[in-house]
Amino acid sequence: MIIADTISQTRKAVAQARDECKTIGLVPTMGALHEGHFSIIRRCREECSFAVVSIFVNPTQFAPDEDLDKYPGNFEADCRACRDLGVDLIFAPTAAEIYPRENLTWINVEKITDHLCGTSRPDHFRGVCTIVAKLFNIIQPDIAWFGQKDAQQLAVIRRMVADLNMPVEVRSCPTVRETGGLAPSSRNNYLNPGQRSRGLCLNQALSRAREMVTDGTTDTNTIIEAMRLIIEKQPDAHIDYISIVDNDLLQPIAEIDRPVLIALAVRIGPARLIDNIIVEPPAKTL
Amino acid sequence: MIIADTISQTRKAVAQARDECKTIGLVPTMGALHEGHFSIIRRCREECSFAVVSIFVNPTQFAPDEDLDKYPGNFEADCRACRDLGVDLIFAPTAAEIYPRENLTWINVEKITDHLCGTSRPDHFRGVCTIVAKLFNIIQPDIAWFGQKDAQQLAVIRRMVADLNMPVEVRSCPTVRETGGLAPSSRNNYLNPGQRSRGLCLNQALSRAREMVTDGTTDTNTIIEAMRLIIEKQPDAHIDYISIVDNDLLQPIAEIDRPVLIALAVRIGPARLIDNIIVEPPAKTL
Repeated sequence: MIIADTISQTRKAVAQARDECKTIGLVPTMGALHEGHFSIIRRCREECSFAVVSIFVNPTQFAPDEDLDKYPGNFEADCRACRDLGVDLIFAPTAAEIYPRENLTWINVEKITDHLCGTSRPDHFRGVCTIVAKLFNIIQPDIAWFGQKDAQQLAVIRRMVADLNMPVEVRSCPTVRETGGLAPSSRNNYLNPGQRSRGLCLNQALSRAREMVTDGTTDTNTIIEAMRLIIEKQPDAHIDYISIVDNDLLQPIAEIDRPVLIALAVRIGPARLIDNIIVEPPAKTL
Repeated sequence: MIIADTISQTRKAVAQARDECKTIGLVPTMGALHEGHFSIIRRCREECSFAVVSIFVNPTQFAPDEDLDKYPGNFEADCRACRDLGVDLIFAPTAAEIYPRENLTWINVEKITDHLCGTSRPDHFRGVCTIVAKLFNIIQPDIAWFGQKDAQQLAVIRRMVADLNMPVEVRSCPTVRETGGLAPSSRNNYLNPGQRSRGLCLNQALSRAREMVTDGTTDTNTIIEAMRLIIEKQPDAHIDYISIVDNDLLQPIAEIDRPVLIALAVRIGPARLIDNIIVEPPAKTL
């Protein structure tokens, strides 16, 4: 396994793999790798003959009041895990390697970023799109994987790739869940055991929403209210948003008449947690 | 010479050239090809083994009140010229091929777009960057050429390529000038013979500026005023801007103490003409 911290090393290693007719796969990460990442890396490993994992905590997707400075990281453990998973190349650049001068060029995806996390994190997706485009241009992967857990990020990147004709195929992996339904997140590291247990309320609210849809409820306000009650039972939980949006442009909808994304963001103590499910409308009986 | 109007045809032809180890060169144009384009295409032809010319009048770089609808075009003449110049592939897509759905993804280069044409054409460079990125992603050229005539466009694209780590080398070609100094432009087609002759005032003003710098004038306001007098002598001429900016971030400067771009945009009757020169400060005598 090659561990590269410069763009030129990385380009050289990838060019050699391409000369050997290998398929280049990329899993972009911010490190602090967990079971969610592992499941994505395994997919990449299975479906590509040259698996690249990038590890870079991208400063431009954090607002000044967010957790950039304390974002968890354990580079040695990440390297060990990647080696065990059969990764071929880790690209782990410094911020100075990625942003050697004031960054003036930004990629914006409109509309899809208007709701959900886009509301409370206004420049977040601009930073995400810009770093993902940079990684795509540096590594030029044939296929790149992203987790369904970051559903809005996935939708935004899919649209960016389509709109800009980027020569890469985006694939997604389903959200991994621990016992009780908590989705792994690097930010779960901020939680104490009590908070961790209260974090299960996100999945409980999503499960209740799915039940209601299965039982025939299609009014999204009714479902959102039921979810809100479940979250508000937790003393330490502050709702950022609970939204039901169409699964293409992520616009809020009133009635579940097509596949929808049910998504929420909740602050539990020091951590802002997000989770989501995709739900189909119940089949109509004739 | 291949003439392709779809992205998939184009990608296939370029992939074959790449398989044959050819160097892919791209000259992006909006058609209505003239001597300025020809000089660029010749450079591309000389320095690359597979020369691609794109012909696409990009709607997203025109404001609603601009000349998109009447922009000149002569596709057959352009094809003949490209064939004569030894071009390998013309990529001439329809707007629906390039923008098959509402375009939500935009690339913005800040600061460099604040002055000069960015002031009177606020969304212009956003459209330029977005289409150039799309063309780069579709054709994946090793080298792309742009004219120095569109100096701000060149600076913006250079910065976009650097900031986003695009795997393409940008090269520029000097501005071609007709007798009298008029720089060829597709928009010169809008001019009647009298206006065409009055259009020479742009080059006259630039030549006067160069003389003044050579003669030791370094105060940019003094130079701009002298240029203004030359332009205002023409009854039909309306100045959009006359600016002297540094040649990197294109910010206005007061004193010529480094290489500068002297640029102007002038409306002559129905045409908005631009021109520019790069001027070095006079060597200091010891």
